Amino acid sequence: MIYLDNAATTRPSDGALARAQHFLTECYYNPSALYGGGAEAGRLLTEARSFLVSRIADPAQFSLVFTSCGTEADNQAIFSAARRGNAVTTQGEHAAVYESFKELKNRGVEPRFAPVRADGSVDADALIEMVDAETSLVSVIHVSNETGAINDIAQIARRVKQKNPRAVFMSDGVQAFGKIDVRLTKEIDLYTVSAHKIGGLKGTGALLRRKSYTAISPYLHGGGQENGLRSGTENVFGIACFYYAAQEKFSSMAEDGVRLAQAKERLWELLDKKIYSRISPQDGSPCILTVSAAGRRGETLQRMLWDMGIAVGTGSACNSKKPHSRVLQACGLDQRMLDGVLRVSFSPSNTAEDAKAAALAMNEAARAFGGN
Amino acid sequence: MIYLDNAATTRPSDGALARAQHFLTECYYNPSALYGGGAEAGRLLTEARSFLVSRIADPAQFSLVFTSCGTEADNQAIFSAARRGNAVTTQGEHAAVYESFKELKNRGVEPRFAPVRADGSVDADALIEMVDAETSLVSVIHVSNETGAINDIAQIARRVKQKNPRAVFMSDGVQAFGKIDVRLTKEIDLYTVSAHKIGGLKGTGALLRRKSYTAISPYLHGGGQENGLRSGTENVFGIACFYYAAQEKFSSMAEDGVRLAQAKERLWELLDKKIYSRISPQDGSPCILTVSAAGRRGETLQRMLWDMGIAVGTGSACNSKKPHSRVLQACGLDQRMLDGVLRVSFSPSNTAEDAKAAALAMNEAARAFGGN
Repeated sequence: MIYLDNAATTRPSDGALARAQHFLTECYYNPSALYGGGAEAGRLLTEARSFLVSRIADPAQFSLVFTSCGTEADNQAIFSAARRGNAVTTQGEHAAVYESFKELKNRGVEPRFAPVRADGSVDADALIEMVDAETSLVSVIHVSNETGAINDIAQIARRVKQKNPRAVFMSDGVQAFGKIDVRLTKEIDLYTVSAHKIGGLKGTGALLRRKSYTAISPYLHGGGQENGLRSGTENVFGIACFYYAAQEKFSSMAEDGVRLAQAKERLWELLDKKIYSRISPQDGSPCILTVSAAGRRGETLQRMLWDMGIAVGTGSACNSKKPHSRVLQACGLDQRMLDGVLRVSFSPSNTAEDAKAAALAMNEAARAFGGN
Repeated sequence: MIYLDNAATTRPSDGALARAQHFLTECYYNPSALYGGGAEAGRLLTEARSFLVSRIADPAQFSLVFTSCGTEADNQAIFSAARRGNAVTTQGEHAAVYESFKELKNRGVEPRFAPVRADGSVDADALIEMVDAETSLVSVIHVSNETGAINDIAQIARRVKQKNPRAVFMSDGVQAFGKIDVRLTKEIDLYTVSAHKIGGLKGTGALLRRKSYTAISPYLHGGGQENGLRSGTENVFGIACFYYAAQEKFSSMAEDGVRLAQAKERLWELLDKKIYSRISPQDGSPCILTVSAAGRRGETLQRMLWDMGIAVGTGSACNSKKPHSRVLQACGLDQRMLDGVLRVSFSPSNTAEDAKAAALAMNEAARAFGGN
């Protein structure tokens, strides 16, 4: 199986699993336990926290709350920060942000959704236009999970703060962290990440927050773990896997990025342009290429490709129950284009050969499919 | 290491880990993915859900939401059900319930805490007295995590519904599920469980709910997983481990219960009664024996025992930052008794020899400690 659906989830890293094994079968203690084993588990959490923050932010400025997933981190950030007035986000957000913004309406906060461009990136001018004195939160996805488009969050955050210095700025970094160079500049307050998109396990995520932004509410009440911000026994093994997988990804991120961008472009070159149109931008994430075989059904192509030994996505796997991608509709794609969407997403485990094999199979499947 | 702190967390079952491995390194797909691998991961979730419900309830009557831990399940249940009037619980609850009830006050619902008896079980008459026409929720812990006392939740739930049929009845079953015989009778609406207390992994729990009770609110907003009640990519590996560990525990629960109850009583017999007083009741959980070496410091004894190769608890590990157990204070223990608390908690992996070794070490540590 050539696995090219890494934006949905990744195969856990064998190296990270091997290193984390100790916390599964030997140091399985509760980090709250006061004896030596508990303390050792607690030290792992401190070490992981410190590493993960330091890769993308100044540890003097940022702290980190471990959560059970990126979705939880997004929910905690949004419902903590959007308490009054209005909250501004984009039509290109992952469901974890988008649906939480829709829920804000039930809580007396007006959600505003800025339009996206054809490649999925936000129309930054339109977004800034929506920010006013009553805006309590602005949230902009860093890398689109649907197209790989990269939003310049540093610049957008700066413009937001110029207009309303009291607005909190957050970004969903799930498809950016460990994949592209990320730096949390001084206008960014909250940033969310997930382990299972970078070779860690499902069940672990984190919310990074600027220490001076203290209005985060506990999302779970109980034993007071995570400085009272996230009660519940810490998922030590999951956090260890996250830490070790992130170490791997960050150690070769620059080279991997160049190599995967080449593989991605090679795939695009080899695709039959009479069948496939490109949705992803040229300057997007090296990990995501979204195309459409207009007039065919992406879901059927996806199943045919699976039978040919190749796993690709159709849209956000988190929205498999909806027939079309909400984000790609917002990008302005017509019905025929929306039908035919395939998302090919890479991890550093993928090779140029994978890209070539995928392209040939995608051409073959679409031709066998006929139509158009 | 003789591990006797199984109420804090358990060593993951080797058997469950081995069986679940498939979902870590082979079928690591996102269950929302529409290709074969995603469907296989999805089937595991269905199978696990169905097994876990069927062990303690009528599957026609109950469904199950997977959560990231018992604490999340408790939070979701409480904040969904306690929407108005007052909510009644006990002073013997785990922090996940107790702290959530305290938070209810900020949300306009009056929390009421029924007293507990010396062994940690609730004073049921006093609890029923607190229930009135304005009560929206009653929550009673099934097995006390601090003493092992078992509350007769079937009878209490019946009495609650007789007094107020509209009140929702829930129980935190984290220390009961897979350890003692549980049957969700018709007056019980919600029940919470956790994987890592029965040989599964930290990071997985579940909320069982009576299907006719439909007022559960989504706790996380996003991709709509878990029938819209808990968004976020499902922790497939964690759920697989939970499922397989539960299969093991339920397959020998009756025999294990008898054997562990004997080991527990053997431990008690061997303890020096000039030093140790018993807090746990005679008819409590076979898995928990809580005692006090009055006048000594439990925390110091715990560390001495760790150095002797034996891990035991002092109180709820989830409350390690508080000097004394809130629950045991509510039981009426005086300062000297509170100081000396040790909780010995068993899993089916423990043997009669473990109990004997622990008793001898506990005597030795307390004598070396001197004082009294």
